[in-house]
Amino acid sequence: MSFALGDLAVRFGCALRGDPERRVDHIAPLGAADASALSYLVNARLSSELSNTRAGAVVLAPESAELCSVPALISPDPHSLFARIAALLHPEPAPVPGIHTSAVVDSAAQIDPSAELAAHCVVGPGVVIGPRCRIGPGCVLERGVQVGADTHLVARVTVRHGVRLGQRVLIQPGAVLGADGFGFAREQGHWIKVPQVGTVVVGDDVEIGANTTVDRGAMQDTVLSDGVKLDNLIQIAHNVQIGAHTAIAACTGVSGSVRIGARCMIGGGVGIAGHIEICDDVVVAGKTSVSSSIHQPGVYASLWPAEPLRRWKRIVARLKILAQRESSRSGNQEAQEADDE
Amino acid sequence: MSFALGDLAVRFGCALRGDPERRVDHIAPLGAADASALSYLVNARLSSELSNTRAGAVVLAPESAELCSVPALISPDPHSLFARIAALLHPEPAPVPGIHTSAVVDSAAQIDPSAELAAHCVVGPGVVIGPRCRIGPGCVLERGVQVGADTHLVARVTVRHGVRLGQRVLIQPGAVLGADGFGFAREQGHWIKVPQVGTVVVGDDVEIGANTTVDRGAMQDTVLSDGVKLDNLIQIAHNVQIGAHTAIAACTGVSGSVRIGARCMIGGGVGIAGHIEICDDVVVAGKTSVSSSIHQPGVYASLWPAEPLRRWKRIVARLKILAQRESSRSGNQEAQEADDE
Amino acid sequence: MSFALGDLAVRFGCALRGDPERRVDHIAPLGAADASALSYLVNARLSSELSNTRAGAVVLAPESAELCSVPALISPDPHSLFARIAALLHPEPAPVPGIHTSAVVDSAAQIDPSAELAAHCVVGPGVVIGPRCRIGPGCVLERGVQVGADTHLVARVTVRHGVRLGQRVLIQPGAVLGADGFGFAREQGHWIKVPQVGTVVVGDDVEIGANTTVDRGAMQDTVLSDGVKLDNLIQIAHNVQIGAHTAIAACTGVSGSVRIGARCMIGGGVGIAGHIEICDDVVVAGKTSVSSSIHQPGVYASLWPAEPLRRWKRIVARLKILAQRESSRSGNQEAQEADDE
Repeated sequence: MSFALGDLAVRFGCALRGDPERRVDHIAPLGAADASALSYLVNARLSSELSNTRAGAVVLAPESAELCSVPALISPDPHSLFARIAALLHPEPAPVPGIHTSAVVDSAAQIDPSAELAAHCVVGPGVVIGPRCRIGPGCVLERGVQVGADTHLVARVTVRHGVRLGQRVLIQPGAVLGADGFGFAREQGHWIKVPQVGTVVVGDDVEIGANTTVDRGAMQDTVLSDGVKLDNLIQIAHNVQIGAHTAIAACTGVSGSVRIGARCMIGGGVGIAGHIEICDDVVVAGKTSVSSSIHQPGVYASLWPAEPLRRWKRIVARLKILAQRESSRSGNQEAQEADDE
Repeated sequence: MSFALGDLAVRFGCALRGDPERRVDHIAPLGAADASALSYLVNARLSSELSNTRAGAVVLAPESAELCSVPALISPDPHSLFARIAALLHPEPAPVPGIHTSAVVDSAAQIDPSAELAAHCVVGPGVVIGPRCRIGPGCVLERGVQVGADTHLVARVTVRHGVRLGQRVLIQPGAVLGADGFGFAREQGHWIKVPQVGTVVVGDDVEIGANTTVDRGAMQDTVLSDGVKLDNLIQIAHNVQIGAHTAIAACTGVSGSVRIGARCMIGGGVGIAGHIEICDDVVVAGKTSVSSSIHQPGVYASLWPAEPLRRWKRIVARLKILAQRESSRSGNQEAQEADDE
Repeated sequence: MSFALGDLAVRFGCALRGDPERRVDHIAPLGAADASALSYLVNARLSSELSNTRAGAVVLAPESAELCSVPALISPDPHSLFARIAALLHPEPAPVPGIHTSAVVDSAAQIDPSAELAAHCVVGPGVVIGPRCRIGPGCVLERGVQVGADTHLVARVTVRHGVRLGQRVLIQPGAVLGADGFGFAREQGHWIKVPQVGTVVVGDDVEIGANTTVDRGAMQDTVLSDGVKLDNLIQIAHNVQIGAHTAIAACTGVSGSVRIGARCMIGGGVGIAGHIEICDDVVVAGKTSVSSSIHQPGVYASLWPAEPLRRWKRIVARLKILAQRESSRSGNQEAQEADDE
């Protein structure tokens, strides 16, 4: 479906420079766009691409408008505008109501008639699936799972017993919600499993990436608040609570009983130690180790950037020597205090 | 089902302070427990919660008993006691013997009649499934897989050909056992696959977390000994051997041919380099890089804790300068030795 | 099936020392091999095993031949030779042409009659599956997926809409290709999803490990070139391009829009920041953080090796003190420059 630029400007309340009758029907990057494509200036440094683009129109900020040789939709927040128009041009497929004949659905499950259950789904007793949900192929929903309206489980998602999902939740393939938390008591060198009797509660508008795991709580619930966005291959351990609109990038692990505030941005490959708190509006750079609570908003890091191997080995060796020498000095009170910790 | 405190004290051989007729039927944290709940004092620092709890009873250590305003089950090892009682109060569902009609089971597989095979399982030729096993929905067991008694594959677990699982093994959804190890020969810049003809051998009482991967051995087997506990999203590479009762937290990667001893505790996000050995009773802190063998029991670490970004950048920059300056000093024998490595 | 050593020497163009009539039918490590096994000297340091082996024959380099007490197949590149012979001795099962009755295949999909579709596969409209493909149990191929000849999806692989796979691709269980990239616009503390309309293009002879995730591009495609090898639990974000014959070890995360050159070797647990480039022939050691582009071939690292915990804490504390002291010195121009960055 195509849209006229003039109609888009009205619908999204933005300024238009250029022909309002020009129509676009898909998005494309500046360098690859044709006359029916809407493009977007990601980065003012790419303005050379802007002057050469063949896009039908470009979404950009006011300060870039002069450089644009084709029609422009102009907004002080062009990324959000572009996201909204892109969603209009590339809508998600609507659910095809009904239950595939190969799905195995317990007679005590309640499936809204407007919902779609694809091939080879398995739905346990007491499951409630709301209006217009799409449950893709191969998903497993154990007993008592609740799924809010307009939620989409793409494929091969596992939701263990009692997990509750909000509305408009989107879960990519392979994600596992509600697996047992990693809880054991140690006795004479052996481990005794502690039953994990909490569950997982997921708010509205949450997105969970491919093969990400969110464990059920030990005694209380693991909570992902409204608007949380989790990338792929993330581990959320038992009892974790994540505040609204916090986003976490891939390969990050959040240990048990951690509380993360609202609107945080946690980079990829981060590790967060157990039982600590991170306040609202914290940004953690990729590959950082967070081993104690963070009480002040701001940006945090602990990443050593890559060096050529020989140089890196020298840096490590010499810094260890320096630390050792510092240690052997007499009268260094600071270092002694560090030792006493 | 509910249990009287007096009966619990007898069954588990612990002391009781309070009414032996009081009954509990579930576990709950101190702050959320009602009169039918059994709670547990995780941490002596939480003793203020102890004096305010409305729990039916609390499991705790002798030194905390005085502070407890409700009945108490008392043990010098309260965590183990709590785990055992919790398992009694919250038993795992028993298997429902039989093979779901949607499961696809090779005629040359041997399924014990007391075992449960759920919907959409796929079981290859030569598979042997022992008594009282529960094979949850969507599991794939390739040819020749052996599953010991009372083992539970929760859902969507893949077990590749020839893998052998012990008794009372518990595997969370999405785990993959016996995928090919990452073995290639390099020839003129290309990679030639080396067939991975070993398998995976899993002992008794092993737990494997969601989306964890355990690769088959190249020529010999990858081995998880009795009582090993693996959290979610862990990678165990080919030929790895892990000793009994070792536990590994989430997001850790163990490279090929590593040997880890018994009763180790490996934190989350750890990386262990290939072909090294870690002896018994080693503890590795989260996010640590283990790049050479560890021959002494103890605790090991290499984590830099997060700092505010500006401060962290200064630390890195200045330490590099210090290392460089140390490097340029004449006559520094230690540093020269480091260079010679 | 067994092969005579003389026939192997002719077929693979290598030298033979010993009886050409001796036959081998499987591979085994030196210490566990019997008279029908072909073994391989991985490492010259293991030459004591070589003199004691009972293998039928050993593949080794010319310089080790003298030490070998049993027949030897000799090559200057013994690892490649061994890989090739091992593949002959341990061939992959051939596809069993046909579509399992439990598979759900859209009528508008084109499945080559020589291909195998196993139990519980789900294949959408417009999917094209080439000759001799093996699509294992529980795989999901959304609409428009293309699969080249001789490609093997082992089990429970999810391939989202429009992804294109080359020939002889091998994908281990649980991998997810073409999930949405992690793209959001931020507006007043909330996230607006940016539709991910690119796809994933996978070249020939690519291998993808268990539970690895490769996200679809935002507007253009995510590209894995010919011969790329990805281990388990790797995250490849949207728009990433990986050059031919590059290999990446487990638990590594590659952020969005990264370009990695050809013939690189990236270790396990590495993190690569977004929007950077790594040139051809770069080696990155395990657990390294790559936060800026690498323009020179070579080996790079940033790993701190594990230390006993007490010693490690002293090193960190003292180095922070040293950095602080350096910072407070007047007239240190280098450090000031670092601050100005």
